[in-house]
Amino acid sequence: MPDILHRVGINTTPGKVFDALSTIDGLSRWWISDTAGDAKQGGIILFGFSDMKVVESKPNKLVKWKCVRGPKEWLDTEIIFQLIPKDDQTFVLFTHANWKEPVEFMHHCSTKWATFLLSMKDWLERAEGRPAPYDVKIHVGD
Amino acid sequence: MPDILHRVGINTTPGKVFDALSTIDGLSRWWISDTAGDAKQGGIILFGFSDMKVVESKPNKLVKWKCVRGPKEWLDTEIIFQLIPKDDQTFVLFTHANWKEPVEFMHHCSTKWATFLLSMKDWLERAEGRPAPYDVKIHVGD
Repeated sequence: MPDILHRVGINTTPGKVFDALSTIDGLSRWWISDTAGDAKQGGIILFGFSDMKVVESKPNKLVKWKCVRGPKEWLDTEIIFQLIPKDDQTFVLFTHANWKEPVEFMHHCSTKWATFLLSMKDWLERAEGRPAPYDVKIHVGD
Repeated sequence: MPDILHRVGINTTPGKVFDALSTIDGLSRWWISDTAGDAKQGGIILFGFSDMKVVESKPNKLVKWKCVRGPKEWLDTEIIFQLIPKDDQTFVLFTHANWKEPVEFMHHCSTKWATFLLSMKDWLERAEGRPAPYDVKIHVGD
Protein backbone atom coordinates (compact mmCIF):
# COMPACT_ATOMS: atom_id res chain seq x y z
CA MET A 1 0.00 0.00 0.00
CA PRO A 2 1.39 3.40 -0.91
CA ASP A 3 2.39 5.88 1.79
CA ILE A 4 3.01 9.60 1.85
CA LEU A 5 6.51 10.27 3.18
CA HIS A 6 8.15 13.51 4.26
CA ARG A 7 11.01 14.81 6.39
CA VAL A 8 11.87 18.22 7.75
CA GLY A 9 14.63 19.24 10.18
CA ILE A 10 13.65 21.85 12.77
CA ASN A 11 16.16 23.94 14.67
CA THR A 12 14.71 23.16 18.11
CA THR A 13 14.50 20.41 20.72
CA PRO A 14 12.45 17.19 20.45
CA GLY A 15 10.45 18.52 23.43
CA LYS A 16 9.29 21.60 21.52
CA VAL A 17 8.39 19.52 18.45
CA PHE A 18 6.51 17.07 20.65
CA ASP A 19 4.53 19.96 22.17
CA ALA A 20 3.56 21.08 18.65
CA LEU A 21 2.27 17.57 17.96
CA SER A 22 0.70 16.59 21.27
CA THR A 23 -1.21 19.67 22.44
CA ILE A 24 -4.30 21.30 20.95
CA ASP A 25 -2.61 24.70 21.08
CA GLY A 26 0.51 23.38 19.34
CA LEU A 27 -1.48 21.73 16.55
CA SER A 28 -3.54 24.88 16.01
CA ARG A 29 -0.35 26.84 15.31
CA TRP A 30 0.73 24.91 12.22
CA TRP A 31 -2.00 22.58 10.93
CA ILE A 32 -5.61 23.64 11.60
CA SER A 33 -6.34 26.86 13.51
CA ASP A 34 -9.65 25.55 14.77
CA THR A 35 -8.38 22.35 16.44
CA ALA A 36 -10.19 20.95 19.49
CA GLY A 37 -10.52 17.72 21.44
CA ASP A 38 -8.04 15.68 23.46
CA ALA A 39 -4.50 15.28 22.13
CA LYS A 40 -3.33 12.82 24.78
CA GLN A 41 -2.83 9.11 24.08
CA GLY A 42 -6.24 7.47 23.67
CA GLY A 43 -7.95 10.83 23.03
CA ILE A 44 -9.61 12.07 19.88
CA ILE A 45 -8.47 15.27 18.22
CA LEU A 46 -11.12 17.21 16.28
CA PHE A 47 -9.66 18.92 13.22
CA GLY A 48 -13.00 19.98 11.74
CA PHE A 49 -12.79 18.11 8.44
CA SER A 50 -11.42 15.01 10.21
CA ASP A 51 -11.10 13.39 13.64
CA MET A 52 -7.95 11.56 14.67
CA LYS A 53 -7.57 9.05 17.48
CA VAL A 54 -4.20 9.31 19.25
CA VAL A 55 -3.03 5.72 19.05
CA GLU A 56 0.43 6.34 20.45
CA SER A 57 2.12 9.31 22.08
CA LYS A 58 5.68 8.76 23.34
CA PRO A 59 7.07 12.01 24.76
CA ASN A 60 9.78 13.52 22.55
CA LYS A 61 9.85 10.43 20.31
CA LEU A 62 6.68 9.58 18.41
CA VAL A 63 3.06 10.47 17.79
CA LYS A 64 0.72 8.19 15.90
CA TRP A 65 -2.88 8.95 14.91
CA LYS A 66 -5.57 6.89 13.25
CA CYS A 67 -8.20 8.64 11.17
CA VAL A 68 -11.62 7.79 12.61
CA ARG A 69 -13.63 10.37 10.61
CA GLY A 70 -12.83 12.39 7.51
CA PRO A 71 -12.47 12.13 3.75
CA LYS A 72 -13.31 8.54 2.76
CA GLU A 73 -9.78 8.00 1.40
CA TRP A 74 -8.41 8.89 4.86
CA LEU A 75 -10.58 6.54 6.93
CA ASP A 76 -8.39 4.09 8.86
CA THR A 77 -5.19 5.59 7.49
CA GLU A 78 -2.45 6.26 10.03
CA ILE A 79 -0.36 9.37 10.44
CA ILE A 80 3.00 8.93 12.16
CA PHE A 81 5.44 11.59 13.31
CA GLN A 82 8.79 10.19 14.43
CA LEU A 83 11.23 12.59 16.11
CA ILE A 84 14.96 12.12 15.62
CA PRO A 85 17.34 14.58 17.33
CA LYS A 86 20.61 15.23 15.48
CA ASP A 87 23.14 17.93 16.36
CA ASP A 88 21.30 21.28 16.33
CA GLN A 89 17.98 20.10 14.96
CA THR A 90 15.13 17.63 15.38
CA PHE A 91 14.18 15.69 12.30
CA VAL A 92 10.49 14.89 11.88
CA LEU A 93 10.04 11.73 9.87
CA PHE A 94 6.47 11.75 8.63
CA THR A 95 4.39 8.91 7.20
CA HIS A 96 0.73 8.94 6.20
CA ALA A 97 0.24 5.21 5.78
CA ASN A 98 -2.31 2.71 4.54
CA TRP A 99 -3.87 4.52 1.64
CA LYS A 100 -5.79 2.00 -0.41
CA GLU A 101 -4.95 3.48 -3.83
CA PRO A 102 -2.58 6.16 -5.15
CA VAL A 103 -5.53 8.32 -6.21
CA GLU A 104 -5.16 11.92 -7.40
CA PHE A 105 -6.31 13.11 -3.96
CA MET A 106 -3.28 11.31 -2.47
CA HIS A 107 -1.00 13.33 -4.77
CA HIS A 108 -2.74 16.48 -3.52
CA CYS A 109 -2.48 15.51 0.16
CA SER A 110 1.21 14.68 -0.20
CA THR A 111 2.04 18.19 -1.43
CA LYS A 112 -0.24 19.71 1.17
CA TRP A 113 1.44 17.77 4.00
CA ALA A 114 4.81 19.17 2.88
CA THR A 115 3.48 22.70 3.25
CA PHE A 116 2.08 21.94 6.70
CA LEU A 117 5.31 20.34 7.93
CA LEU A 118 7.16 23.44 6.73
CA SER A 119 4.50 25.47 8.55
CA MET A 120 5.42 23.55 11.74
CA LYS A 121 9.11 24.29 11.07
CA ASP A 122 8.39 28.00 10.56
CA TRP A 123 6.16 28.10 13.65
CA LEU A 124 8.82 26.56 15.89
CA GLU A 125 11.78 28.45 14.43
CA ARG A 126 10.26 31.90 14.02
CA ALA A 127 6.62 31.96 15.17
CA GLU A 128 5.35 32.08 11.58
CA GLY A 129 3.13 29.04 11.20
CA ARG A 130 0.52 28.91 8.44
CA PRO A 131 -2.29 26.72 9.76
CA ALA A 132 -5.50 26.43 7.73
CA PRO A 133 -7.25 28.65 6.73
CA TYR A 134 -4.00 30.65 6.31
CA ASP A 135 -2.25 27.69 4.63
CA VAL A 136 -0.12 27.80 1.48
CA LYS A 137 -2.45 27.35 -1.50
CA ILE A 138 -1.31 24.72 -3.96
CA HIS A 139 -3.98 25.06 -6.66
CA VAL A 140 -6.61 27.55 -7.79
CA GLY A 141 -9.54 27.16 -5.38
CA ASP A 142 -7.51 25.33 -2.69
CA MET B 1 7.76 -0.26 -4.79
CA PRO B 2 7.02 3.06 -3.09
CA ASP B 3 6.58 6.25 -5.12
CA ILE B 4 6.71 9.93 -4.30
CA LEU B 5 3.44 11.59 -5.35
CA HIS B 6 2.52 15.26 -5.62
CA ARG B 7 0.04 17.56 -7.31
CA VAL B 8 -0.09 21.30 -7.86
CA GLY B 9 -2.52 23.38 -9.92
CA ILE B 10 -0.99 26.26 -11.87
CA ASN B 11 -2.97 29.20 -13.19
CA THR B 12 -1.63 28.95 -16.74
CA THR B 13 -1.92 26.86 -19.91
CA PRO B 14 -0.57 23.33 -20.44
CA GLY B 15 1.73 24.87 -23.08
CA LYS B 16 3.45 27.14 -20.54
CA VAL B 17 3.83 24.28 -18.06
CA PHE B 18 5.22 22.05 -20.81
CA ASP B 19 7.79 24.75 -21.68
CA ALA B 20 8.88 24.84 -18.03
CA LEU B 21 9.42 21.06 -18.17
CA SER B 22 10.84 20.58 -21.64
CA THR B 23 13.36 23.40 -22.13
CA ILE B 24 16.68 24.00 -20.40
CA ASP B 25 15.72 27.61 -19.71
CA GLY B 26 12.36 26.57 -18.25
CA LEU B 27 13.89 23.95 -15.95
CA SER B 28 16.53 26.41 -14.74
CA ARG B 29 13.79 28.76 -13.53
CA TRP B 30 12.28 26.45 -10.95
CA TRP B 31 14.46 23.37 -10.27
CA ILE B 32 18.21 23.81 -10.80
CA SER B 33 19.63 27.17 -11.93
CA ASP B 34 22.63 25.54 -13.53
CA THR B 35 20.78 23.13 -15.86
CA ALA B 36 22.36 22.13 -19.19
CA GLY B 37 22.06 19.43 -21.85
CA ASP B 38 19.27 18.46 -24.22
CA ALA B 39 15.68 18.48 -22.93
CA LYS B 40 14.09 16.96 -26.04
CA GLN B 41 12.84 13.38 -26.18
CA GLY B 42 15.85 11.04 -26.25
CA GLY B 43 18.17 13.74 -24.91
CA ILE B 44 19.99 13.88 -21.59
CA ILE B 45 19.48 16.78 -19.21
CA LEU B 46 22.43 17.65 -16.95
CA PHE B 47 21.26 18.86 -13.55
CA GLY B 48 24.71 18.87 -11.96
CA PHE B 49 24.06 16.38 -9.15
CA SER B 50 22.12 14.10 -11.54
CA ASP B 51 21.57 13.41 -15.25
CA MET B 52 18.13 12.53 -16.60
CA LYS B 53 17.33 10.87 -19.89
CA VAL B 54 14.12 12.20 -21.47
CA VAL B 55 12.24 8.96 -22.08
CA GLU B 56 9.01 10.58 -23.20
CA SER B 57 7.98 14.11 -24.07
CA LYS B 58 4.43 14.61 -25.34
CA PRO B 59 3.76 18.30 -25.94
CA ASN B 60 1.35 19.78 -23.38
CA LYS B 61 0.60 16.33 -21.92
CA LEU B 62 3.48 14.45 -20.34
CA VAL B 63 7.20 14.43 -19.61
CA LYS B 64 9.00 11.35 -18.35
CA TRP B 65 12.65 11.12 -17.32
CA LYS B 66 14.83 8.24 -16.22
CA CYS B 67 17.71 8.91 -13.85
CA VAL B 68 20.93 7.73 -15.53
CA ARG B 69 23.37 9.33 -13.06
CA GLY B 70 22.91 10.72 -9.57
CA PRO B 71 22.44 9.66 -5.95
CA LYS B 72 22.48 5.85 -5.81
CA GLU B 73 18.90 5.74 -4.53
CA TRP B 74 17.81 7.65 -7.67
CA LEU B 75 19.51 5.46 -10.28
CA ASP B 76 16.91 3.99 -12.66
CA THR B 77 14.05 5.75 -10.90
CA GLU B 78 11.57 7.53 -13.15
CA ILE B 79 10.15 11.00 -12.80
CA ILE B 80 6.83 11.66 -14.48
CA PHE B 81 4.99 14.96 -14.94
CA GLN B 82 1.47 14.55 -16.27
CA LEU B 83 -0.41 17.71 -17.29
CA ILE B 84 -4.16 17.92 -16.83
CA PRO B 85 -5.95 21.12 -17.88
CA LYS B 86 -9.05 21.99 -15.86
CA ASP B 87 -10.96 25.26 -16.01
CA ASP B 88 -8.52 28.07 -15.28
CA GLN B 89 -5.52 25.97 -14.30
CA THR B 90 -3.21 23.15 -15.34
CA PHE B 91 -2.75 20.39 -12.80
CA VAL B 92 0.69 18.80 -12.67
CA LEU B 93 0.44 15.23 -11.44
CA PHE B 94 3.92 14.25 -10.32
CA THR B 95 5.34 10.78 -9.62
CA HIS B 96 8.90 9.86 -8.73
CA ALA B 97 8.62 6.11 -9.20
CA ASN B 98 10.57 2.92 -8.64
CA TRP B 99 12.41 3.68 -5.44
CA LYS B 100 13.75 0.41 -4.05
CA GLU B 101 13.15 1.21 -0.37
CA PRO B 102 11.32 3.92 1.60
CA VAL B 103 14.64 5.15 3.05
CA GLU B 104 14.95 8.38 5.04
CA PHE B 105 16.41 10.07 1.93
CA MET B 106 13.13 9.31 0.15
CA HIS B 107 11.23 11.16 2.90
CA HIS B 108 13.61 14.11 2.36
CA CYS B 109 13.24 14.06 -1.43
CA SER B 110 9.45 13.93 -1.18
CA THR B 111 9.31 17.17 0.84
CA LYS B 112 11.93 18.76 -1.40
CA TRP B 113 9.95 17.90 -4.58
CA ALA B 114 6.91 19.65 -3.07
CA THR B 115 8.93 22.83 -2.66
CA PHE B 116 10.23 22.62 -6.23
CA LEU B 117 6.76 22.03 -7.71
CA LEU B 118 5.55 25.07 -5.79
CA SER B 119 8.61 26.90 -7.16
CA MET B 120 7.39 25.98 -10.69
CA LYS B 121 3.92 27.27 -9.76
CA ASP B 122 5.37 30.55 -8.45
CA TRP B 123 7.64 30.88 -11.50
CA LEU B 124 4.78 30.49 -13.95
CA GLU B 125 2.23 32.55 -12.01
CA ARG B 126 4.41 35.43 -10.86
CA ALA B 127 7.99 34.99 -12.08
CA GLU B 128 9.19 34.03 -8.59
CA GLY B 129 10.77 30.61 -8.97
CA ARG B 130 13.19 29.34 -6.35
CA PRO B 131 15.54 26.98 -8.21
CA ALA B 132 18.57 25.60 -6.36
CA PRO B 133 20.72 27.14 -4.94
CA TYR B 134 17.92 29.60 -3.99
CA ASP B 135 15.58 26.75 -3.00
CA VAL B 136 13.45 26.55 0.15
CA LYS B 137 15.57 24.97 2.89
CA ILE B 138 13.86 22.12 4.71
CA HIS B 139 16.48 21.29 7.36
CA VAL B 140 19.53 22.87 8.95
CA GLY B 141 22.37 22.48 6.45
CA ASP B 142 20.09 21.76 3.46
